[in-house]
Amino acid sequence: MAATDRPPLARIDPAPPERGDAARNRVLILDAARRLIAERGPDAVSTDDIAVAAGVGKGTVFRRFGSRAGLMMVLLDEDETAEQNAFMFGPPPLGPGAPPLERLLAYGEDRLRFVHCHQALLSDAIRDPALRYTGPFALHRTHIRMLLETAETTGNLDAQADALLALLDPDYVAHQLGLGRSLDELSTAWQDTARKLCGH
Amino acid sequence: MAATDRPPLARIDPAPPERGDAARNRVLILDAARRLIAERGPDAVSTDDIAVAAGVGKGTVFRRFGSRAGLMMVLLDEDETAEQNAFMFGPPPLGPGAPPLERLLAYGEDRLRFVHCHQALLSDAIRDPALRYTGPFALHRTHIRMLLETAETTGNLDAQADALLALLDPDYVAHQLGLGRSLDELSTAWQDTARKLCGH
Repeated sequence: MAATDRPPLARIDPAPPERGDAARNRVLILDAARRLIAERGPDAVSTDDIAVAAGVGKGTVFRRFGSRAGLMMVLLDEDETAEQNAFMFGPPPLGPGAPPLERLLAYGEDRLRFVHCHQALLSDAIRDPALRYTGPFALHRTHIRMLLETAETTGNLDAQADALLALLDPDYVAHQLGLGRSLDELSTAWQDTARKLCGH
Repeated sequence: MAATDRPPLARIDPAPPERGDAARNRVLILDAARRLIAERGPDAVSTDDIAVAAGVGKGTVFRRFGSRAGLMMVLLDEDETAEQNAFMFGPPPLGPGAPPLERLLAYGEDRLRFVHCHQALLSDAIRDPALRYTGPFALHRTHIRMLLETAETTGNLDAQADALLALLDPDYVAHQLGLGRSLDELSTAWQDTARKLCGH
């Protein structure tokens, strides 16, 4: 942007053009990235591809997100927040209102699909072993444990929550899919184990 | 060794001195490393420490094992083989002869202690996600699944074996101990979960 394009400093506007542009570009870039990753998987999507699909310059992508990795982390973070909102506050059976076992089964299926869609990003995020059981993973564990408890599950709920969470681990899911198992098979196996722990 | 120290080529001896020295040094070095690691943990043990404790030169350690990492891998491999022999062929309750649930409970306790002792080495070995569920871990999973099956456990045994194995994951165990849980608590929690899956 040339210096002459800048709005005067005293301009009284709650949303000056730069901010509006920035916000619009941010949404355009994230939507384009999300769409391309869904189509091709994250490894086949470059910053160039994202910039072209979003209709912005490559420099804009780097100015907004710092790097491709930065963009990917924002993407993961936004999607993770949306998923958390869905199981904590959204409609049943994933959200409150359904019986705990039904919520648990819906959660397992939903999380497996999320992990599958975001596998490469999540796997990167847990490359440091200190991060494998912390951050968003700790919240997921708390959610599973709360549902086990509400379902009046017997035995050591900490270990059972950890065991169920481990079957949703991004590296575990990738390994199982690599062995030729389908996402539906993994979902059925997870739900079977959850039902068994809940005594059904 | 000076050239004049070499035995004559035609010497009829089933164990020539070089081989005897090499084998003895190998045992001395591995025993010293095992002892020091048990005392201080692997991070506090240098190649120098091991050489001094074994009564050999540092050069001998590098000649035998290539590097500190090479020595550590040999150590882990030998101990892993000894553990596998114990649960596959050793005396009950870990080995054959005890009822399957008793063997499973003994295995969980034994493996937790093994993982604790070898945590840093094992954690290094699974830094590559492709190795987290393969190699020795695949054998452990087969063992757990076999015992679940022999105990006539209902439901999806693949998922249940994976879930039990995940509670013995080196990074998981390290994280739990870091949270202040004791090895005994982890062992009790594992056994409780195994019992529940076996329907007891």
